[in-house]
Amino acid sequence: MTPHSSSATPVAGRAQLHKPALLHALADPALGAISFLNEVIDRFPQAISFAPGAPFAKFFDDLDVARHIERYERHLVEDKGLTPARAKRRLYQYGPAQGVINDLLARALRIDHGMDVAPEAIVVTVGCQEAMVLALRALCPTPDDLLAIVNPCFVGIAGAAKVLGIDPVAIDETSSGVDLGALDRACIAARRDGQRIRALYVAPDFSNPSGTLMDLPTRHALLAAARAHDFLLLEDDAYGFTAESGSALPTLKALDAEGRVIYLGTCAKICLPGVRVGFMVADQEVVDEAGKTTLLASELTLIKSMLTVNTSPICQAIVGGMMLEHDGSLAAVGREKALLYRRNLRHLLDALSRHLPPALCAQQHVSWNEPQGGFFVRVRLPVVADYALLERCAARHGVLWTPMSSFFLDGAGRHELRLACSYLTPEEIDEGVARFARFVADDKLMRSS
Amino acid sequence: MTPHSSSATPVAGRAQLHKPALLHALADPALGAISFLNEVIDRFPQAISFAPGAPFAKFFDDLDVARHIERYERHLVEDKGLTPARAKRRLYQYGPAQGVINDLLARALRIDHGMDVAPEAIVVTVGCQEAMVLALRALCPTPDDLLAIVNPCFVGIAGAAKVLGIDPVAIDETSSGVDLGALDRACIAARRDGQRIRALYVAPDFSNPSGTLMDLPTRHALLAAARAHDFLLLEDDAYGFTAESGSALPTLKALDAEGRVIYLGTCAKICLPGVRVGFMVADQEVVDEAGKTTLLASELTLIKSMLTVNTSPICQAIVGGMMLEHDGSLAAVGREKALLYRRNLRHLLDALSRHLPPALCAQQHVSWNEPQGGFFVRVRLPVVADYALLERCAARHGVLWTPMSSFFLDGAGRHELRLACSYLTPEEIDEGVARFARFVADDKLMRSS
Repeated sequence: MTPHSSSATPVAGRAQLHKPALLHALADPALGAISFLNEVIDRFPQAISFAPGAPFAKFFDDLDVARHIERYERHLVEDKGLTPARAKRRLYQYGPAQGVINDLLARALRIDHGMDVAPEAIVVTVGCQEAMVLALRALCPTPDDLLAIVNPCFVGIAGAAKVLGIDPVAIDETSSGVDLGALDRACIAARRDGQRIRALYVAPDFSNPSGTLMDLPTRHALLAAARAHDFLLLEDDAYGFTAESGSALPTLKALDAEGRVIYLGTCAKICLPGVRVGFMVADQEVVDEAGKTTLLASELTLIKSMLTVNTSPICQAIVGGMMLEHDGSLAAVGREKALLYRRNLRHLLDALSRHLPPALCAQQHVSWNEPQGGFFVRVRLPVVADYALLERCAARHGVLWTPMSSFFLDGAGRHELRLACSYLTPEEIDEGVARFARFVADDKLMRSS
Repeated sequence: MTPHSSSATPVAGRAQLHKPALLHALADPALGAISFLNEVIDRFPQAISFAPGAPFAKFFDDLDVARHIERYERHLVEDKGLTPARAKRRLYQYGPAQGVINDLLARALRIDHGMDVAPEAIVVTVGCQEAMVLALRALCPTPDDLLAIVNPCFVGIAGAAKVLGIDPVAIDETSSGVDLGALDRACIAARRDGQRIRALYVAPDFSNPSGTLMDLPTRHALLAAARAHDFLLLEDDAYGFTAESGSALPTLKALDAEGRVIYLGTCAKICLPGVRVGFMVADQEVVDEAGKTTLLASELTLIKSMLTVNTSPICQAIVGGMMLEHDGSLAAVGREKALLYRRNLRHLLDALSRHLPPALCAQQHVSWNEPQGGFFVRVRLPVVADYALLERCAARHGVLWTPMSSFFLDGAGRHELRLACSYLTPEEIDEGVARFARFVADDKLMRSS
């Protein structure tokens, strides 16, 4: 055995791999956090779970994917002039790595967000997760190319960074969106160290896990910061569709005159998770040493072609068919869902106020925020809200939630938990909050840690 | 501007990214080779193309994906006891990162290859491409963890390596499979340099681009080499299904008593490319520093959860439904296709013999190999078979092919080209080879470079 060897042949005659010789991120407990949470959920099947941020499942009972595929095929034949056989081949054969519904997505972005985006500037990805991976891989090629993340954040961005060997810089979230002073200082500190922040990941509309809505002045200031310090914004818009009609703020990308924003979209919540379709808008111009220019979307497509080749055109057809059935709007596909999620969120906040009156909250040192959209509410406890407490809560009170510390890059949020309202019926929310109130009133748990 | 800055604000007020500050592999011409080839193909729409290794498109004319999805849903209800609503949710909701048809794939591998594999040792991936990315990311975490590749090779493995920043070691292919002496020397040289070859990528059954079939003694010797030098084999079995019935050699994985092989499968050729479903068998035991063991498949799943979250369960259902319709066999799904591809390959080889008689070949210094399966034939020319020659061939003779040098890691193969037979009808093959013969007889082209 040399010092490099990572495998030994045990008695059974099978090779064995040593974990320290595999990708180092695999030893990071954060990477396994979701599966650990799922394990706890599995052990308490009777508990009401505010843990998963998954879409409301009843939406799927009447879903007819064959109809949506057919609608898209008809579009290819009637609007695009393909023969029926060619239309089928567009769905079933290998296809362009950049995507096949880019024109429909560009139209939806124009209708829904007033964004003026060319189809060539869009890459259709295997969910929003692949879009994040492509952006990170392209923009952070060396250890001196830093990724900043608004903290706390979606576990997917932190996980993508870890898997790609990127150690992110945490910038604190504030009630107005992001700590711009901290961002400024981080950019200056990076340059002083011969490094550079290349991108900031941010979810301005009802972020996961906090439900924070970035206000308009902060949006403008953030774009100015991106210009001043020469970085890109990775705008994740998974939850913007849940905004009250007419009250939505413009996306960063809609405000982006300079090409500072890569917009990340997902069809998981608006259409369905099972298609694994997301997309990114990357209309930045890239210039090589010879002065030749391309779109950043083309460069990202090259990377994608070596990660997943292309996004299933069958799945793209399902999304395409849904948009076509709603006059080309993606927001219209999600309108009914947005109504339900807003109703659920109001219901959750109402139930919390009812079951946890001010006197009890004051006595137990419990509080929560009141988001205007999204799937999540953040609750502060007087004790550490870790997996041990979650298990005791599930066992004694039959209710589940997610420790907030899972979403922090820096181990903060230890006294907080996240409640998700997307997955439950109003009745389940009521009963769940009643149980949650008993948990909060349980002095054995609220004073022990 | 600091030296780190990579973007300038041009007159138009738009930010501009400098390509040298993006992922360095993006400047590698190999990464753009496929799109360059497609550009040439697009410019000559009337040419007969032996270039793309894509499946025969007529197979898709009668394909009914809705029927396959239904068949899989019925399986969930009738065989697995799910309610119809739960079955739908299995397809449309978020699902396990490791996959949902793992049990069906394990059964198919048993029926088709006599492989004894637990469902938990399988990861369902977004095509075989993602499987390669997962293996490379897990096994080559540092620059001292080398990847060896049998050379020439499928562009996807070289591209995945480049995108992940891995500089592969080329091991020459031979007519019996792989140059074992060169492999041995490469392993020893790596160790001498304080490095280690962690894996060898190989396609033993009718490799792309060479059509080489690795013989049985070489398979055994390769497994012995993997044991002796303590590395894993990444076995790509995209074309094994085209073997003459009864004459197929056992896969490396079927011979693998020790757990030295990660088996990479694709459903693109056997089912359809549009599903983007592949899979990998990774039944190796991983042991961490505390002595806790997991399956390598679980570790790969963790990485996958941060790249693409999960493979579309709708697409998995299509593949699952196809297998169920064929008594659980994947090979049976591909039987009709295998017949057609064998017929096409024979047809191509016959046409080459007819149109390029020995006297002409001798005179023009042209020769080719005679694979017994797969999609490809390798032709040697007296001149450099590069993109310039391809363009002139297309313009003068109306026939397209792929320069072999695209498949070499080391710039070799300059005098060779690849003909693919999968995409064409017998009539097109005849006419294409007649044109190809005129190209070969064209002294202007055969003596100019």
